[in-house]
Amino acid sequence: MYVRGSIDELQVKLADLLDAFLASAERAGNAAMPAYTHLQKAEPVLVAHWLLAYVEMFTRDSERLADCRKRVNLCPLGSGAVAGTTIALDRRAMTAELGFDAPTANSVDATSDRDFVLEFVTHLSLQGVHLSRWAEEMILFSTQEFGFLRLPEAYSTGSSAMPQKKNPDLLELVRGKAGRVAGSATTLLMSVKGLPLAYNKDLQETQEPLFDASETSLTMLPLVTGWMRAVEFEFEHMQMATQSGFMNAWAAATYLVERGVPFRLAHEQVGKAVVFCVEKGCELRDLSLEQLRQFSPLIEADFHSRLELDAVLAIHDVVGGTAPGRVKQAISDARQRVAAMRGVAHAHA
Amino acid sequence: MYVRGSIDELQVKLADLLDAFLASAERAGNAAMPAYTHLQKAEPVLVAHWLLAYVEMFTRDSERLADCRKRVNLCPLGSGAVAGTTIALDRRAMTAELGFDAPTANSVDATSDRDFVLEFVTHLSLQGVHLSRWAEEMILFSTQEFGFLRLPEAYSTGSSAMPQKKNPDLLELVRGKAGRVAGSATTLLMSVKGLPLAYNKDLQETQEPLFDASETSLTMLPLVTGWMRAVEFEFEHMQMATQSGFMNAWAAATYLVERGVPFRLAHEQVGKAVVFCVEKGCELRDLSLEQLRQFSPLIEADFHSRLELDAVLAIHDVVGGTAPGRVKQAISDARQRVAAMRGVAHAHA
Amino acid sequence: MYVRGSIDELQVKLADLLDAFLASAERAGNAAMPAYTHLQKAEPVLVAHWLLAYVEMFTRDSERLADCRKRVNLCPLGSGAVAGTTIALDRRAMTAELGFDAPTANSVDATSDRDFVLEFVTHLSLQGVHLSRWAEEMILFSTQEFGFLRLPEAYSTGSSAMPQKKNPDLLELVRGKAGRVAGSATTLLMSVKGLPLAYNKDLQETQEPLFDASETSLTMLPLVTGWMRAVEFEFEHMQMATQSGFMNAWAAATYLVERGVPFRLAHEQVGKAVVFCVEKGCELRDLSLEQLRQFSPLIEADFHSRLELDAVLAIHDVVGGTAPGRVKQAISDARQRVAAMRGVAHAHA
Amino acid sequence: MYVRGSIDELQVKLADLLDAFLASAERAGNAAMPAYTHLQKAEPVLVAHWLLAYVEMFTRDSERLADCRKRVNLCPLGSGAVAGTTIALDRRAMTAELGFDAPTANSVDATSDRDFVLEFVTHLSLQGVHLSRWAEEMILFSTQEFGFLRLPEAYSTGSSAMPQKKNPDLLELVRGKAGRVAGSATTLLMSVKGLPLAYNKDLQETQEPLFDASETSLTMLPLVTGWMRAVEFEFEHMQMATQSGFMNAWAAATYLVERGVPFRLAHEQVGKAVVFCVEKGCELRDLSLEQLRQFSPLIEADFHSRLELDAVLAIHDVVGGTAPGRVKQAISDARQRVAAMRGVAHAHA
Repeated sequence: MYVRGSIDELQVKLADLLDAFLASAERAGNAAMPAYTHLQKAEPVLVAHWLLAYVEMFTRDSERLADCRKRVNLCPLGSGAVAGTTIALDRRAMTAELGFDAPTANSVDATSDRDFVLEFVTHLSLQGVHLSRWAEEMILFSTQEFGFLRLPEAYSTGSSAMPQKKNPDLLELVRGKAGRVAGSATTLLMSVKGLPLAYNKDLQETQEPLFDASETSLTMLPLVTGWMRAVEFEFEHMQMATQSGFMNAWAAATYLVERGVPFRLAHEQVGKAVVFCVEKGCELRDLSLEQLRQFSPLIEADFHSRLELDAVLAIHDVVGGTAPGRVKQAISDARQRVAAMRGVAHAHA
Repeated sequence: MYVRGSIDELQVKLADLLDAFLASAERAGNAAMPAYTHLQKAEPVLVAHWLLAYVEMFTRDSERLADCRKRVNLCPLGSGAVAGTTIALDRRAMTAELGFDAPTANSVDATSDRDFVLEFVTHLSLQGVHLSRWAEEMILFSTQEFGFLRLPEAYSTGSSAMPQKKNPDLLELVRGKAGRVAGSATTLLMSVKGLPLAYNKDLQETQEPLFDASETSLTMLPLVTGWMRAVEFEFEHMQMATQSGFMNAWAAATYLVERGVPFRLAHEQVGKAVVFCVEKGCELRDLSLEQLRQFSPLIEADFHSRLELDAVLAIHDVVGGTAPGRVKQAISDARQRVAAMRGVAHAHA
Repeated sequence: MYVRGSIDELQVKLADLLDAFLASAERAGNAAMPAYTHLQKAEPVLVAHWLLAYVEMFTRDSERLADCRKRVNLCPLGSGAVAGTTIALDRRAMTAELGFDAPTANSVDATSDRDFVLEFVTHLSLQGVHLSRWAEEMILFSTQEFGFLRLPEAYSTGSSAMPQKKNPDLLELVRGKAGRVAGSATTLLMSVKGLPLAYNKDLQETQEPLFDASETSLTMLPLVTGWMRAVEFEFEHMQMATQSGFMNAWAAATYLVERGVPFRLAHEQVGKAVVFCVEKGCELRDLSLEQLRQFSPLIEADFHSRLELDAVLAIHDVVGGTAPGRVKQAISDARQRVAAMRGVAHAHA
Repeated sequence: MYVRGSIDELQVKLADLLDAFLASAERAGNAAMPAYTHLQKAEPVLVAHWLLAYVEMFTRDSERLADCRKRVNLCPLGSGAVAGTTIALDRRAMTAELGFDAPTANSVDATSDRDFVLEFVTHLSLQGVHLSRWAEEMILFSTQEFGFLRLPEAYSTGSSAMPQKKNPDLLELVRGKAGRVAGSATTLLMSVKGLPLAYNKDLQETQEPLFDASETSLTMLPLVTGWMRAVEFEFEHMQMATQSGFMNAWAAATYLVERGVPFRLAHEQVGKAVVFCVEKGCELRDLSLEQLRQFSPLIEADFHSRLELDAVLAIHDVVGGTAPGRVKQAISDARQRVAAMRGVAHAHA
């Protein structure tokens, strides 16, 4: 019953977190930023599109908890010490009264099983990993070097000696807690491994990791939600960062592909132009039409406009892509999913 | 797609394993054995009832994989490098053609996500723990001291020097593999922890633990199924073991409760009788009516019949209890669930 | 300094535990028991010889802690925030005054390092595994089926309803705690993984697993020591258990080897005799000289005396073997090692 | 013997790695860079000083392996199946001949012990964590945003489409492998947990994690060494990065402390000056003497010179501090330690 209650509470807090991400995505409008692969600038995306990646992750966390709840919501009462109770008892009626879906089906299993704890905590350890990735990005983006966001005062500490320094304490703690929850999962798997049926006192050791993982998650989620509501992104700086690093190279190649150049050749031709730019210390947009035609005679006067940020974003026009219309639709879809989550959570309250 | 295929294969092998347990439960008929708590004899149960505990565990493993499959069965194709493909593509049509449920909803998430691996492997680590508990019990029950089963020749090794010794090699390997699969889960959680979005080469490190955990599980299940089909239980010895150790003490107290003695007092009175027996070196059934009445005047001539194994089993007459009628029903219910599992597996094949 | 203090405290408690094992080994005298491989009876050993196996394990745990202490006992004071203190400070003098061996050698390392925590806790997780193996054996040996020991009342619980049942609570908790300490090690490795230098707040997350692992170990050791002092072994029952299961088969083969039969052939001949016995339901000692000579003509009248328990024990006369003289020497060697441990512990107190 | 051989091989490779770091530190001369805490610029340090932090970490890894070797280098031969061999054997002589330090002291322990594997692999998992921290920093410092180093071509991959992008493949793999080695440690602890003595087939499961962790480490170290030899630091850029972010604030406060201002007040006064600068968008050095005296009347004309990088570095003049003379000494000390390591490694070869 503790696990069931924790799941229901976590679902509400996850819905709050998702709402905070969605509100943040909406506030971001059509602001763009670099998307990174290998922590190297790859392509520009909408800030909203980036934030929606986290919406997907935490939505899966919510779905996993909902699935887990089905298996948790069985009533073991009436299993006796191991063979089933000897009291005449209508377990089905009792089960319904207590809000469970069904009675557990085998008394030996019911007195030795801790699956509901193990499954729950392994799910929380995935959620912890998601939170650690979020924290890592926020820490990076808050550095002077990236400069993509201002750390909210309420969630950071400074020092009297170095007032210029704001430390991302909450983010670091959230990142560190991923290890803590995963450690609880290890404890649980190892404690139950190799135990004969049915009850053994070792199972008492499953309680602390359960409570710790659950409380840690319940405490972190609202803090992360609060942080997301309080953070201020430096949209101008983010957008500016998309102007360097040849983030339109892929779009340039797509231009050629549309004109019939085979994919591989198109990328090779653009690649040569990029190398040329790197040597000259400029970006593709700084090359003249004449210079560009050395790399591909199919480049026309409309090429430069295709290198603009808006055009680059627009061509990723596919379900799940960063074209603004797609992102808007994705926000709207996610809003509906969160509303549905809240409906279920309300019914369980 | 590898994970989806592995899940489908595992489901078939889990159905085979469940069938082997159910066949074994049916073969056991009304044979009884001691159920243990704290590895001490607690109450008698049907051998079939004990085997059904494992049916419950592996059924949950199957359900978890089915839930995981929903989240796995999304198509990431069309996510491009990170921002979504720039090729005009109908991702929904392509997705349907490839047998996926839907396209992934966000390109940044799709190129950085390994949830499908982590969730799958954490589920396998729970399954590994179940298998380790099964192996532990079979090892214990195969010792000369317990003597509940004969190790099947095909799954054991001997030594020329000590031909009396049959080593439970398969069981020990199965028990050990629980650590291996849990280690893969640790590897995965730790490799992904703290990674910024989107793709990082660290994610390549998720492949080996995935393959290893999946192949380990796929290899173990049919071996365990084969072992269960080949093992011979020593039903006579198991049943004999229920005759000592005061396994009818609870039933004796229930007798008193039925006659109006408050629960706590009934157990106290029986407890005193047991202590008396321990000192005399006998069992409750060996006491005369007169001796018994020293502990409770409500004990009548029908008391001794209530201490018989059949009577003791019969009073656990509750859903999930070990009364023979309940166990028969439980086998039949489980048969239906396995048939349904096979139906789904067939549809996915 | 917390870690150093914990190590010093653990060393004293480990010395106490080793003394309890050695006292128990001395009390056991020349009593014998079956040694198991694959949980199947293999060869007889002295009870004292079996207990000395644990002495070896916990001695290694003590050595590891002593090695760890060298690396722990460095003084980080004077490292400042990251670049070294700006106060004129004689770190070497201060270090000596505080009882450290030396100052840490690099300020960036000193402010970001948690090796002393990680090494300490991984050592404790090995110790936890040793304790879990000890607990598992004691649980097995306390069952009605093995019957090798009586659970000490003070460390066990019973139930009013089943007073015949004594539950090995302490042993089960000790076994379960192995998972807990290993979980702390996982937490630590994962929390520190991938952190840039120097200090990050994630490192605060190393405190709780450190305290928890340390306190858990400090609490368990004296309980185990107390248990070992209180337990009563059923020496008669243990010795009797060596009389069945062909535990002298190896000794029989050694008899033949001494008479010039090649090793492999000797074991094959004895093996055939064992199979013959298994079919007849008897032990080797029950065969007549005539029957035995069917398997090897080299068997003489002195053969039966070589099958006696004393003779079987005596031929394992090698350093580390179970021959009584060797075991006596091993106890004496161990006593000296523990005395040396206490000397070091005393100097650190 | 496999573990002993691996340790000896690892020691040579660790010595090579340490030499690469030391050579790199020497090449760096008196170049400076920001040291980070919380991934925020904290104080300037010599590049060499930063590199020496890794020298400390990998030196501890080497020491741990040396300690482990003492416990590994015992000869179990002659332990027989479990009770000691029955062949008359001089174990001490055999042990010396095979290059071991001593025979194992107890046959039951020797046939059930896997401490040498567990200790070795837990040490490797600490080394893996160190390597992951190194990799993380190198990845960060190779980004366009930090720009502290150029990825060596031989250890990176690009793409034809985005030739401006060099992916830090080796670094990411090294970071990911930390999870792999830690997973092996989890596997080992869990496989051995709760096993009764002596040999059980589960112990066979300790081989793969051992080989995998060992081979992973042996493969990574020379790659990291090669990378360190090939990398080119952007010393100019690193040095420039020390000019912003108020990295001399601590030095400024030290100036006041030297003039008798209490520590806390000194930092408060400098703090106010920093806030003033942040508002004006300048650094401390840009304030006039008059402006500075508003915050503390004790500031004199020599104050500005104390804000220079050289002066800031120089005041960290303590053992383990970043003052150039201290760093030079530390390099020389480390060179000697590595030479000693090589001497031992040579004796073991």
